[in-house]
Amino acid sequence: MFNAKAYSAVSATSPLASTTIPRRNPTERDVQIDILYCGICHSDLHSVRNEWSSIMPTIYPIVPGHEIVGRVTKVGFAVTHFKPGDLAGVGCLVDSDHTCPNCLDNLEQLCPHQTLTFNSPDKHLGGVTYGGYSESIVVDERFVLHIPANLDLAGVAPLLCAGITTYSPIRRWGDIKGKKIGVAGLGGLGHMGVKFARAFGAQVVVITTSPSKIKDALRLGAHEVIVSTHVEEMQNHAGSFDFILDTIAADHDINAYLNLLGHDGNITLVGAPEKPLAVSAFALLFGRRSLSGSIIGGLRETQEMLDFCGTHNITADVEVIPIQEVNTA
Amino acid sequence: MFNAKAYSAVSATSPLASTTIPRRNPTERDVQIDILYCGICHSDLHSVRNEWSSIMPTIYPIVPGHEIVGRVTKVGFAVTHFKPGDLAGVGCLVDSDHTCPNCLDNLEQLCPHQTLTFNSPDKHLGGVTYGGYSESIVVDERFVLHIPANLDLAGVAPLLCAGITTYSPIRRWGDIKGKKIGVAGLGGLGHMGVKFARAFGAQVVVITTSPSKIKDALRLGAHEVIVSTHVEEMQNHAGSFDFILDTIAADHDINAYLNLLGHDGNITLVGAPEKPLAVSAFALLFGRRSLSGSIIGGLRETQEMLDFCGTHNITADVEVIPIQEVNTA
Repeated sequence: MFNAKAYSAVSATSPLASTTIPRRNPTERDVQIDILYCGICHSDLHSVRNEWSSIMPTIYPIVPGHEIVGRVTKVGFAVTHFKPGDLAGVGCLVDSDHTCPNCLDNLEQLCPHQTLTFNSPDKHLGGVTYGGYSESIVVDERFVLHIPANLDLAGVAPLLCAGITTYSPIRRWGDIKGKKIGVAGLGGLGHMGVKFARAFGAQVVVITTSPSKIKDALRLGAHEVIVSTHVEEMQNHAGSFDFILDTIAADHDINAYLNLLGHDGNITLVGAPEKPLAVSAFALLFGRRSLSGSIIGGLRETQEMLDFCGTHNITADVEVIPIQEVNTA
Repeated sequence: MFNAKAYSAVSATSPLASTTIPRRNPTERDVQIDILYCGICHSDLHSVRNEWSSIMPTIYPIVPGHEIVGRVTKVGFAVTHFKPGDLAGVGCLVDSDHTCPNCLDNLEQLCPHQTLTFNSPDKHLGGVTYGGYSESIVVDERFVLHIPANLDLAGVAPLLCAGITTYSPIRRWGDIKGKKIGVAGLGGLGHMGVKFARAFGAQVVVITTSPSKIKDALRLGAHEVIVSTHVEEMQNHAGSFDFILDTIAADHDINAYLNLLGHDGNITLVGAPEKPLAVSAFALLFGRRSLSGSIIGGLRETQEMLDFCGTHNITADVEVIPIQEVNTA
């Protein structure tokens, strides 16, 4: 065991504060990583504030962070895919049972015995896992990703969560080349959705409540922007979309978006509004539309996403701050 | 033009009463049919009572009925697929534009210019179309179905709506052989869903609020029945279904059903509850589940369904009443 500096919160109302946490010495399959950058994801905040207490109650102290990029400093003797000096990424998961049908199908994100990067029971040290708001982390090599060398590392960090969260449903929908694809919401998830949809050759339309985001949307690669509060704009696009990636975490009128879909169109939610969505059965029936959810991706798909980003030179738009300013961010 | 006896309602609060309606003489592509049986569908009642006024306001007088089985009495000179004496069926549609992408794709039920069997603008006679609560009907042969000769004709009538409504989403879901398929609700739609799912080789589980329906469900072919108000039974089946056909037209807790799905599982709604369904985003996200809608089927698929029923000797369970007792039914 060794000590690592970290930022933790001791209660739902405490700020994050500098502390020291234990990390295990690498076992035979482990990779020890010096963390260079860690993204700040909205779900970090939910967890720190215990806002998802009904689903995943927070155990304090909590060290959040699951969008981790760093450099390997040590590896266990059985590690074959990483060596000291390599770039490495860690996302939302650091372990799973490796034996369930989902794991065997490379869907570790659906494993019933997965270990999350923070706030999950720690099999090695007891207590709970501590995330990436820290100077280092030790992770089973099967949950460590390779980072393409050509990418800006700070902009890579959010790919480990926001990247795979948006890449996975777009990929699974099918070949979107030439299709009319909507991205609803233009935050951390939405802006990645635009980049991926554009890179896959879609006709990309951003749907936002904020006219102030039109410029950003076009700069990121959108061909067109609909301001969702403009009823006429929404009507003009009714029935015309093949697929909409819905990244909106706030309450919103999902039927207005369903009505944008053509027949057999799909909306996939990747944001998680707290309140249930009021779905009109008619909006689904007429046009045989569907509403789905998607959650991150498996390790193989995450590596595929990172490689795709390397090829297409895609990173997240980020603002880099020192960890000391994390409470302001 | 000729006169035909029919039953019509003159307002949302009137009973159906005997009347006479005009029918066109068959044009070159038309088939004239003597109606032997017509199903009473729940949507007939909704239309008569103008309960779907926001979507399809009723124009009075209305002659409902879109589950029609009869015998051909006359055909236009260009008709090639029917001759007098043939059995014939007519469902929810009697025309479409034949030129839109949906029509070209055999999805006439999604054509924006479709003509419904009743309460739709009548291109030939003006006014609105009159449905199957009548002694005869005249329909473009492209919207007339062949009825397998081995089937009980009274039990065939509901296949034209309830049959295709349940057959289509089951077929489109994919190969359900050996899969665990739920049918929620055991009315006119649900009982057809059970028969089809069983005929396609699925492990069929009926989910119902009524313990009194257990016996019926098993007789119809279900392997198992869950009473949805029994929390423990629902929990025992959590995460285990591949697909659920939701035929419930009343308000219900859709999340309880979503939680029955395994990952990538789908619920398809074919019932149309008036009130929006309160869908938890988390119920969709975890497990990448989806909620879809489906509405009848195209003409080709409807014929495929009827042929399948002929091969598997499937008809709807019906109670036959004389038209004079329609208001009691």
